[in-house]
Amino acid sequence: MVEAKALFFDIFGTVVDWRGGIAHEAKKLLKPLGYELDWIDFAQAWRNEYQPAMKEVREGRIPFSKLDELHRRNLDRIRPKFGLDALDEEICQSLNTGWHRLDAWPDATDGLKRLSKRFLLAPVSNGNISLMANLARHNGFRWDAILGAEIAGDYKPKPVVYRAACSAFDLEPQACMMVAAHSYDLKAAADCGLRTAHVARPDEAGPGTGEKRPSIKVDVAAKDFVDLADKLQT
Amino acid sequence: MVEAKALFFDIFGTVVDWRGGIAHEAKKLLKPLGYELDWIDFAQAWRNEYQPAMKEVREGRIPFSKLDELHRRNLDRIRPKFGLDALDEEICQSLNTGWHRLDAWPDATDGLKRLSKRFLLAPVSNGNISLMANLARHNGFRWDAILGAEIAGDYKPKPVVYRAACSAFDLEPQACMMVAAHSYDLKAAADCGLRTAHVARPDEAGPGTGEKRPSIKVDVAAKDFVDLADKLQT
Repeated sequence: MVEAKALFFDIFGTVVDWRGGIAHEAKKLLKPLGYELDWIDFAQAWRNEYQPAMKEVREGRIPFSKLDELHRRNLDRIRPKFGLDALDEEICQSLNTGWHRLDAWPDATDGLKRLSKRFLLAPVSNGNISLMANLARHNGFRWDAILGAEIAGDYKPKPVVYRAACSAFDLEPQACMMVAAHSYDLKAAADCGLRTAHVARPDEAGPGTGEKRPSIKVDVAAKDFVDLADKLQT
Repeated sequence: MVEAKALFFDIFGTVVDWRGGIAHEAKKLLKPLGYELDWIDFAQAWRNEYQPAMKEVREGRIPFSKLDELHRRNLDRIRPKFGLDALDEEICQSLNTGWHRLDAWPDATDGLKRLSKRFLLAPVSNGNISLMANLARHNGFRWDAILGAEIAGDYKPKPVVYRAACSAFDLEPQACMMVAAHSYDLKAAADCGLRTAHVARPDEAGPGTGEKRPSIKVDVAAKDFVDLADKLQT
Protein backbone atom coordinates (compact mmCIF):
# COMPACT_ATOMS: atom_id res chain seq x y z
CA MET A 1 0.00 0.00 0.00
CA VAL A 2 1.32 3.46 -0.91
CA GLU A 3 2.11 5.55 2.13
CA ALA A 4 0.05 8.70 2.68
CA LYS A 5 2.15 11.79 2.07
CA ALA A 6 -0.41 14.58 2.18
CA LEU A 7 -3.44 15.32 4.32
CA PHE A 8 -6.23 17.43 2.86
CA PHE A 9 -8.64 19.17 5.22
CA ASP A 10 -12.21 20.18 5.06
CA ILE A 11 -12.34 23.44 7.02
CA PHE A 12 -15.86 24.64 7.91
CA GLY A 13 -17.16 22.44 10.69
CA THR A 14 -14.11 20.16 10.64
CA VAL A 15 -11.32 22.59 11.58
CA VAL A 16 -13.22 25.75 12.52
CA ASP A 17 -16.50 26.36 14.31
CA TRP A 18 -18.59 28.36 11.82
CA ARG A 19 -21.68 28.36 14.04
CA GLY A 20 -20.15 29.87 17.17
CA GLY A 21 -17.85 32.06 15.08
CA ILE A 22 -20.49 33.67 12.88
CA ALA A 23 -22.82 34.15 15.87
CA HIS A 24 -19.95 35.90 17.69
CA GLU A 25 -18.97 38.08 14.73
CA ALA A 26 -22.57 39.09 14.05
CA LYS A 27 -23.17 40.00 17.67
CA LYS A 28 -19.93 41.99 17.85
CA LEU A 29 -20.83 44.01 14.77
CA LEU A 30 -24.59 44.38 15.08
CA LYS A 31 -25.34 44.65 18.79
CA PRO A 32 -23.57 48.04 19.09
CA LEU A 33 -25.86 49.21 16.26
CA GLY A 34 -28.89 48.34 18.37
CA TYR A 35 -29.77 45.01 16.77
CA GLU A 36 -30.93 42.18 18.99
CA LEU A 37 -31.31 38.86 17.28
CA ASP A 38 -30.87 35.21 17.96
CA TRP A 39 -27.23 35.16 16.85
CA ILE A 40 -27.07 31.38 16.59
CA ASP A 41 -30.24 31.36 14.47
CA PHE A 42 -28.68 33.95 12.24
CA ALA A 43 -25.49 31.89 11.80
CA GLN A 44 -27.55 28.81 11.04
CA ALA A 45 -29.75 30.62 8.52
CA TRP A 46 -26.69 31.95 6.72
CA ARG A 47 -25.08 28.53 6.65
CA ASN A 48 -28.31 26.98 5.36
CA GLU A 49 -27.86 28.91 2.12
CA TYR A 50 -24.35 27.45 1.65
CA GLN A 51 -25.08 24.21 -0.18
CA PRO A 52 -27.85 25.61 -2.41
CA ALA A 53 -25.55 28.44 -3.58
CA MET A 54 -22.71 26.05 -4.45
CA LYS A 55 -25.18 23.76 -6.16
CA GLU A 56 -25.83 26.50 -8.71
CA VAL A 57 -22.11 26.53 -9.55
CA ARG A 58 -21.75 22.74 -9.51
CA GLU A 59 -24.65 22.39 -11.92
CA GLY A 60 -23.33 25.10 -14.22
CA ARG A 61 -26.26 27.50 -13.72
CA ILE A 62 -23.84 30.28 -12.69
CA PRO A 63 -20.09 30.54 -13.39
CA PHE A 64 -17.63 29.69 -10.63
CA SER A 65 -17.52 32.46 -8.02
CA LYS A 66 -15.42 32.57 -4.88
CA LEU A 67 -17.16 31.47 -1.72
CA ASP A 68 -16.86 35.05 -0.39
CA GLU A 69 -19.16 36.13 -3.21
CA LEU A 70 -21.63 33.34 -2.54
CA HIS A 71 -21.57 34.15 1.18
CA ARG A 72 -22.35 37.75 0.36
CA ARG A 73 -25.29 36.86 -1.86
CA ASN A 74 -26.53 34.50 0.81
CA LEU A 75 -26.27 37.23 3.43
CA ASP A 76 -28.35 39.56 1.29
CA ARG A 77 -30.93 36.79 0.91
CA ILE A 78 -31.38 36.27 4.66
CA ARG A 79 -31.13 39.92 5.78
CA PRO A 80 -34.87 40.66 5.43
CA LYS A 81 -35.75 37.68 7.62
CA PHE A 82 -33.65 39.17 10.44
CA GLY A 83 -34.70 42.80 9.98
CA LEU A 84 -31.28 43.71 8.58
CA ASP A 85 -32.45 45.36 5.33
CA ALA A 86 -31.02 48.73 6.30
CA LEU A 87 -27.41 47.63 7.04
CA ASP A 88 -24.91 49.80 5.23
CA GLU A 89 -22.44 48.36 2.75
CA GLU A 90 -19.45 48.59 5.06
CA ILE A 91 -21.17 46.57 7.77
CA CYS A 92 -22.28 43.96 5.25
CA GLN A 93 -18.70 43.59 4.07
CA SER A 94 -17.41 43.27 7.63
CA LEU A 95 -20.03 40.65 8.41
CA ASN A 96 -19.04 38.77 5.28
CA THR A 97 -15.36 38.71 6.22
CA GLY A 98 -16.46 37.33 9.58
CA TRP A 99 -15.97 33.97 7.85
CA HIS A 100 -12.25 34.85 7.69
CA ARG A 101 -12.08 35.21 11.48
CA LEU A 102 -13.65 31.98 12.70
CA ASP A 103 -11.97 30.25 15.63
CA ALA A 104 -10.65 26.73 15.31
CA TRP A 105 -12.04 23.94 17.44
CA PRO A 106 -9.82 23.75 20.55
CA ASP A 107 -7.89 20.66 19.40
CA ALA A 108 -7.28 21.74 15.80
CA THR A 109 -4.22 24.00 15.90
CA ASP A 110 -2.18 21.65 18.10
CA GLY A 111 -3.27 18.58 16.17
CA LEU A 112 -2.33 20.19 12.85
CA LYS A 113 1.07 21.16 14.23
CA ARG A 114 1.80 17.54 15.07
CA LEU A 115 0.45 16.25 11.75
CA SER A 116 2.63 18.77 9.91
CA LYS A 117 5.76 16.97 11.08
CA ARG A 118 4.94 13.94 9.00
CA PHE A 119 2.65 15.07 6.19
CA LEU A 120 2.16 17.85 3.69
CA LEU A 121 -0.97 19.69 4.82
CA ALA A 122 -3.43 21.66 2.73
CA PRO A 123 -7.00 22.82 3.10
CA VAL A 124 -9.19 21.28 0.41
CA SER A 125 -12.15 23.40 1.30
CA ASN A 126 -14.83 25.20 -0.63
CA GLY A 127 -13.50 28.43 0.88
CA ASN A 128 -11.45 30.72 -1.34
CA ILE A 129 -7.71 31.29 -1.06
CA SER A 130 -7.88 34.59 0.84
CA LEU A 131 -10.43 33.16 3.26
CA MET A 132 -8.15 30.17 3.95
CA ALA A 133 -5.07 32.40 4.28
CA ASN A 134 -6.83 34.66 6.78
CA LEU A 135 -8.17 31.74 8.83
CA ALA A 136 -4.63 30.36 8.94
CA ARG A 137 -3.26 33.65 10.25
CA HIS A 138 -6.10 33.96 12.77
CA ASN A 139 -5.57 30.47 14.16
CA GLY A 140 -1.87 29.76 13.58
CA PHE A 141 -2.34 26.99 11.01
CA ARG A 142 0.68 26.31 8.84
CA TRP A 143 -0.35 24.98 5.44
CA ASP A 144 2.03 23.82 2.74
CA ALA A 145 -0.30 25.22 0.10
CA ILE A 146 -3.90 26.31 -0.18
CA LEU A 147 -5.74 23.95 -2.47
CA GLY A 148 -9.47 23.36 -2.89
CA ALA A 149 -12.33 24.95 -4.79
CA GLU A 150 -10.64 28.10 -6.06
CA ILE A 151 -7.75 26.09 -7.55
CA ALA A 152 -10.18 23.65 -9.15
CA GLY A 153 -12.77 26.19 -10.32
CA ASP A 154 -15.62 24.12 -8.91
CA TYR A 155 -17.04 23.04 -5.56
CA LYS A 156 -16.82 19.86 -3.51
CA PRO A 157 -18.05 17.20 -3.67
CA LYS A 158 -17.31 17.42 -7.42
CA PRO A 159 -14.42 15.02 -8.21
CA VAL A 160 -12.35 17.73 -9.92
CA VAL A 161 -11.69 19.41 -6.57
CA TYR A 162 -10.08 16.32 -4.99
CA ARG A 163 -8.22 15.45 -8.19
CA ALA A 164 -6.85 18.98 -8.65
CA ALA A 165 -5.50 18.85 -5.10
CA CYS A 166 -3.64 15.54 -5.64
CA SER A 167 -2.30 16.82 -8.92
CA ALA A 168 -1.03 20.09 -7.39
CA PHE A 169 1.13 18.01 -5.04
CA ASP A 170 2.14 15.56 -7.81
CA LEU A 171 0.66 12.73 -5.77
CA GLU A 172 -1.46 9.76 -6.69
CA PRO A 173 -4.85 9.84 -4.91
CA GLN A 174 -3.87 6.89 -2.70
CA ALA A 175 -0.97 8.99 -1.31
CA CYS A 176 -3.49 11.63 -0.17
CA MET A 177 -5.93 11.47 2.73
CA MET A 178 -9.02 13.63 3.00
CA VAL A 179 -9.89 14.64 6.58
CA ALA A 180 -13.45 15.76 7.26
CA ALA A 181 -16.28 15.66 9.77
CA HIS A 182 -18.75 14.94 6.97
CA SER A 183 -19.22 11.52 5.42
CA TYR A 184 -20.47 12.93 2.07
CA ASP A 185 -17.13 14.71 1.62
CA LEU A 186 -15.16 11.57 2.51
CA LYS A 187 -17.34 9.44 0.24
CA ALA A 188 -16.61 11.74 -2.71
CA ALA A 189 -12.87 11.73 -1.92
CA ALA A 190 -12.84 7.93 -1.61
CA ASP A 191 -14.60 7.66 -4.97
CA CYS A 192 -11.60 9.52 -6.44
CA GLY A 193 -9.21 7.05 -4.80
CA LEU A 194 -8.12 9.15 -1.81
CA ARG A 195 -7.78 7.74 1.67
CA THR A 196 -10.15 9.05 4.29
CA ALA A 197 -10.11 10.15 7.91
CA HIS A 198 -13.23 11.11 9.80
CA VAL A 199 -13.03 13.55 12.69
CA ALA A 200 -16.13 13.67 14.91
CA ARG A 201 -17.70 17.09 15.46
CA PRO A 202 -20.89 15.99 17.17
CA ASP A 203 -21.91 19.54 18.09
CA GLU A 204 -21.14 21.22 14.78
CA ALA A 205 -24.56 22.81 14.26
CA GLY A 206 -25.66 22.60 17.89
CA PRO A 207 -25.53 19.86 20.52
CA GLY A 208 -25.84 16.42 19.00
CA THR A 209 -26.33 17.61 15.43
CA GLY A 210 -23.02 16.47 13.95
CA GLU A 211 -21.69 13.06 12.92
CA LYS A 212 -20.46 11.17 15.98
CA ARG A 213 -19.00 8.62 13.62
CA PRO A 214 -18.78 8.23 9.86
CA SER A 215 -21.71 6.71 7.99
CA ILE A 216 -19.31 5.15 5.47
CA LYS A 217 -16.23 2.98 5.75
CA VAL A 218 -13.14 5.14 6.33
CA ASP A 219 -9.44 4.45 6.83
CA VAL A 220 -9.28 6.27 10.15
CA ALA A 221 -12.02 7.48 12.50
CA ALA A 222 -10.82 9.98 15.10
CA LYS A 223 -12.43 11.80 18.02
CA ASP A 224 -10.58 15.02 17.25
CA PHE A 225 -7.30 16.26 15.72
CA VAL A 226 -5.15 15.17 18.64
CA ASP A 227 -6.61 11.68 18.35
CA LEU A 228 -5.98 11.82 14.58
CA ALA A 229 -2.33 12.74 15.21
CA ASP A 230 -2.08 9.79 17.64
CA LYS A 231 -3.69 7.41 15.16
CA LEU A 232 -1.42 8.56 12.33
CA GLN A 233 1.57 8.18 14.65
CA THR A 234 2.84 11.73 14.48
CA MET B 1 -1.48 55.92 -1.14
CA VAL B 2 -2.84 52.46 -0.35
CA GLU B 3 -0.71 50.55 2.14
CA ALA B 4 1.00 47.39 0.88
CA LYS B 5 -0.60 44.33 2.44
CA ALA B 6 1.00 41.48 0.53
CA LEU B 7 4.49 40.77 -0.74
CA PHE B 8 4.91 38.50 -3.76
CA PHE B 9 8.25 36.82 -4.33
CA ASP B 10 10.15 35.71 -7.33
CA ILE B 11 11.94 32.56 -6.19
CA PHE B 12 14.68 31.29 -8.55
CA GLY B 13 17.65 33.60 -8.16
CA THR B 14 15.82 35.95 -5.80
CA VAL B 15 15.11 33.67 -2.83
CA VAL B 16 17.03 30.50 -3.70
CA ASP B 17 20.37 29.89 -5.41
CA TRP B 18 19.54 27.70 -8.42
CA ARG B 19 23.11 27.74 -9.74
CA GLY B 20 24.90 26.43 -6.66
CA GLY B 21 21.95 24.21 -5.80
CA ILE B 22 21.64 22.42 -9.13
CA ALA B 23 25.43 22.03 -9.36
CA HIS B 24 25.37 20.45 -5.87
CA GLU B 25 22.43 18.14 -6.61
CA ALA B 26 23.92 17.00 -9.92
CA LYS B 27 27.28 16.26 -8.34
CA LYS B 28 25.66 14.39 -5.46
CA LEU B 29 23.67 12.17 -7.82
CA LEU B 30 26.06 11.72 -10.74
CA LYS B 31 29.55 11.63 -9.26
CA PRO B 32 28.90 8.29 -7.45
CA LEU B 33 27.87 6.92 -10.87
CA GLY B 34 31.30 7.83 -12.24
CA TYR B 35 30.38 11.04 -14.05
CA GLU B 36 32.79 13.96 -13.89
CA LEU B 37 31.49 17.15 -15.35
CA ASP B 38 31.70 20.86 -14.80
CA TRP B 39 28.76 20.94 -12.42
CA ILE B 40 28.34 24.70 -12.62
CA ASP B 41 28.37 24.54 -16.42
CA PHE B 42 25.71 21.86 -16.24
CA ALA B 43 23.51 23.99 -13.96
CA GLN B 44 23.95 26.97 -16.24
CA ALA B 45 23.14 24.97 -19.39
CA TRP B 46 19.96 23.64 -17.79
CA ARG B 47 18.92 27.09 -16.68
CA ASN B 48 19.62 28.48 -20.16
CA GLU B 49 16.73 26.40 -21.48
CA TYR B 50 14.34 27.93 -18.93
CA GLN B 51 13.15 31.07 -20.70
CA PRO B 52 12.90 29.46 -24.20
CA ALA B 53 10.72 26.66 -22.79
CA MET B 54 8.34 29.06 -21.05
CA LYS B 55 8.24 31.20 -24.18
CA GLU B 56 6.58 28.31 -25.99
CA VAL B 57 3.80 28.33 -23.38
CA ARG B 58 3.51 32.13 -23.26
CA GLU B 59 3.14 32.28 -27.02
CA GLY B 60 0.58 29.48 -27.08
CA ARG B 61 2.70 27.04 -29.07
CA ILE B 62 2.26 24.39 -26.36
CA PRO B 63 -0.41 24.18 -23.64
CA PHE B 64 0.47 25.24 -20.10
CA SER B 65 2.64 22.61 -18.42
CA LYS B 66 4.06 22.72 -14.91
CA LEU B 67 7.62 23.94 -14.64
CA ASP B 68 8.65 20.46 -13.48
CA GLU B 69 7.64 19.15 -16.89
CA LEU B 70 9.50 21.91 -18.71
CA HIS B 71 12.57 21.29 -16.54
CA ARG B 72 12.43 17.63 -17.46
CA ARG B 73 12.21 18.33 -21.19
CA ASN B 74 15.06 20.80 -20.84
CA LEU B 75 17.15 18.21 -19.01
CA ASP B 76 16.60 15.72 -21.81
CA ARG B 77 17.67 18.40 -24.30
CA ILE B 78 21.02 19.08 -22.60
CA ARG B 79 21.91 15.51 -21.59
CA PRO B 80 23.73 14.65 -24.84
CA LYS B 81 25.95 17.72 -24.48
CA PHE B 82 27.15 16.44 -21.09
CA GLY B 83 27.45 12.77 -22.02
CA LEU B 84 24.40 11.87 -19.93
CA ASP B 85 22.43 10.03 -22.64
CA ALA B 86 22.53 6.76 -20.74
CA LEU B 87 21.10 7.97 -17.41
CA ASP B 88 18.25 5.81 -16.24
CA GLU B 89 14.76 7.15 -15.65
CA GLU B 90 14.98 7.12 -11.87
CA ILE B 91 18.14 9.25 -11.88
CA CYS B 92 16.62 11.69 -14.36
CA GLN B 93 13.62 12.10 -12.06
CA SER B 94 15.83 12.63 -9.02
CA LEU B 95 17.86 15.23 -10.89
CA ASN B 96 14.66 16.96 -11.92
CA THR B 97 13.38 17.17 -8.35
CA GLY B 98 16.75 18.71 -7.46
CA TRP B 99 14.93 21.98 -8.19
CA HIS B 100 12.74 21.18 -5.15
CA ARG B 101 15.80 21.03 -2.88
CA LEU B 102 17.60 24.28 -3.65
CA ASP B 103 19.02 26.21 -0.72
CA ALA B 104 17.92 29.74 0.03
CA TRP B 105 20.41 32.61 -0.07
CA PRO B 106 21.71 33.01 3.50
CA ASP B 107 19.59 36.10 4.28
CA ALA B 108 16.31 34.84 2.83
CA THR B 109 14.73 32.67 5.54
CA ASP B 110 15.35 35.19 8.35
CA GLY B 111 14.27 38.12 6.21
CA LEU B 112 11.05 36.38 5.21
CA LYS B 113 10.32 35.57 8.84
CA ARG B 114 10.49 39.26 9.73
CA LEU B 115 8.47 40.32 6.68
CA SER B 116 5.80 37.77 7.59
CA LYS B 117 4.95 39.73 10.74
CA ARG B 118 3.62 42.62 8.74
CA PHE B 119 2.60 41.27 5.33
CA LEU B 120 0.90 38.37 3.68
CA LEU B 121 3.63 36.49 1.80
CA ALA B 122 3.34 34.35 -1.30
CA PRO B 123 5.67 33.13 -3.98
CA VAL B 124 4.64 34.45 -7.38
CA SER B 125 7.10 32.29 -9.24
CA ASN B 126 7.05 30.32 -12.43
CA GLY B 127 7.63 27.21 -10.32
CA ASN B 128 4.71 24.87 -9.75
CA ILE B 129 2.87 24.42 -6.46
CA SER B 130 4.63 21.21 -5.37
CA LEU B 131 8.02 22.71 -6.20
CA MET B 132 7.23 25.78 -4.09
CA ALA B 133 5.83 23.66 -1.24
CA ASN B 134 8.95 21.49 -1.18
CA LEU B 135 11.33 24.47 -1.29
CA ALA B 136 9.41 25.95 1.62
CA ARG B 137 9.80 22.76 3.67
CA HIS B 138 13.47 22.51 2.75
CA ASN B 139 14.24 26.10 3.78
CA GLY B 140 11.67 26.86 6.47
CA PHE B 141 9.71 29.48 4.52
CA ARG B 142 6.21 30.15 5.76
CA TRP B 143 3.95 31.26 2.94
CA ASP B 144 0.34 32.35 3.35
CA ALA B 145 -0.48 30.74 0.01
CA ILE B 146 1.33 29.54 -3.06
CA LEU B 147 0.41 31.73 -5.99
CA GLY B 148 2.13 32.20 -9.35
CA ALA B 149 2.21 30.44 -12.71
CA GLU B 150 0.28 27.27 -11.84
CA ILE B 151 -2.63 29.28 -10.39
CA ALA B 152 -2.66 31.56 -13.42
CA GLY B 153 -2.12 28.89 -16.09
CA ASP B 154 0.61 30.95 -17.78
CA TYR B 155 4.14 32.17 -17.12
CA LYS B 156 5.63 35.46 -15.95
CA PRO B 157 6.12 38.05 -17.22
CA LYS B 158 2.59 37.67 -18.68
CA PRO B 159 0.27 40.11 -16.84
CA VAL B 160 -2.23 37.37 -15.95
CA VAL B 161 0.22 35.90 -13.45
CA TYR B 162 0.54 39.10 -11.39
CA ARG B 163 -3.18 39.85 -11.69
CA ALA B 164 -4.22 36.35 -10.62
CA ALA B 165 -2.05 36.70 -7.53
CA CYS B 166 -3.63 40.01 -6.47
CA SER B 167 -7.06 38.60 -7.12
CA ALA B 168 -6.40 35.46 -5.04
CA PHE B 169 -5.73 37.72 -2.04
CA ASP B 170 -8.66 40.03 -2.89
CA LEU B 171 -6.24 42.94 -3.11
CA GLU B 172 -5.87 45.80 -5.54
CA PRO B 173 -2.50 45.71 -7.35
CA GLN B 174 -1.29 48.79 -5.46
CA ALA B 175 -1.73 46.87 -2.19
CA CYS B 176 0.70 44.21 -3.48
CA MET B 177 4.45 44.46 -3.89
CA MET B 178 6.48 42.23 -6.20
CA VAL B 179 9.95 41.38 -4.85
CA ALA B 180 12.55 40.20 -7.36
CA ALA B 181 16.20 40.36 -8.31
CA HIS B 182 15.25 40.86 -11.96
CA SER B 183 14.14 44.17 -13.40
CA TYR B 184 12.12 42.57 -16.23
CA ASP B 185 9.91 40.86 -13.63
CA LEU B 186 9.45 44.09 -11.66
CA LYS B 187 8.73 46.05 -14.83
CA ALA B 188 5.95 43.61 -15.77
CA ALA B 189 4.52 43.78 -12.24
CA ALA B 190 4.64 47.58 -12.23
CA ASP B 191 2.83 47.62 -15.58
CA CYS B 192 0.00 45.76 -13.82
CA GLY B 193 -0.06 48.38 -11.05
CA LEU B 194 1.87 46.48 -8.37
CA ARG B 195 4.52 48.08 -6.21
CA THR B 196 8.05 46.84 -6.65
CA ALA B 197 11.05 45.93 -4.52
CA HIS B 198 14.39 44.98 -6.00
CA VAL B 199 16.75 42.71 -4.09
CA ALA B 200 20.30 42.61 -5.40
CA ARG B 201 21.74 39.18 -6.20
CA PRO B 202 24.92 40.27 -7.95
CA ASP B 203 26.34 36.75 -8.11
CA GLU B 204 23.22 34.93 -9.25
CA ALA B 205 24.74 33.21 -12.29
CA GLY B 206 28.34 33.60 -11.19
CA PRO B 207 30.39 36.47 -9.72
CA GLY B 208 29.21 39.83 -11.01
CA THR B 209 26.57 38.42 -13.36
CA GLY B 210 23.45 39.57 -11.50
CA GLU B 211 21.78 42.97 -11.16
CA LYS B 212 23.57 45.05 -8.53
CA ARG B 213 20.71 47.51 -8.78
CA PRO B 214 17.45 47.70 -10.72
CA SER B 215 17.51 49.04 -14.26
CA ILE B 216 14.05 50.55 -13.77
CA LYS B 217 12.49 52.82 -11.17
CA VAL B 218 11.30 50.76 -8.18
CA ASP B 219 9.61 51.58 -4.88
CA VAL B 220 12.32 49.93 -2.79
CA ALA B 221 15.85 48.77 -3.67
CA ALA B 222 17.40 46.46 -1.09
CA LYS B 223 20.77 44.74 -0.69
CA ASP B 224 19.17 41.55 0.58
CA PHE B 225 16.10 40.31 2.49
CA VAL B 226 17.28 41.60 5.85
CA ASP B 227 17.76 45.03 4.29
CA LEU B 228 14.31 44.72 2.72
CA ALA B 229 12.81 43.94 6.13
CA ASP B 230 14.58 47.00 7.54
CA LYS B 231 13.36 49.21 4.71
CA LEU B 232 9.78 47.97 5.06
CA GLN B 233 10.02 48.54 8.82
CA THR B 234 9.25 45.02 9.94
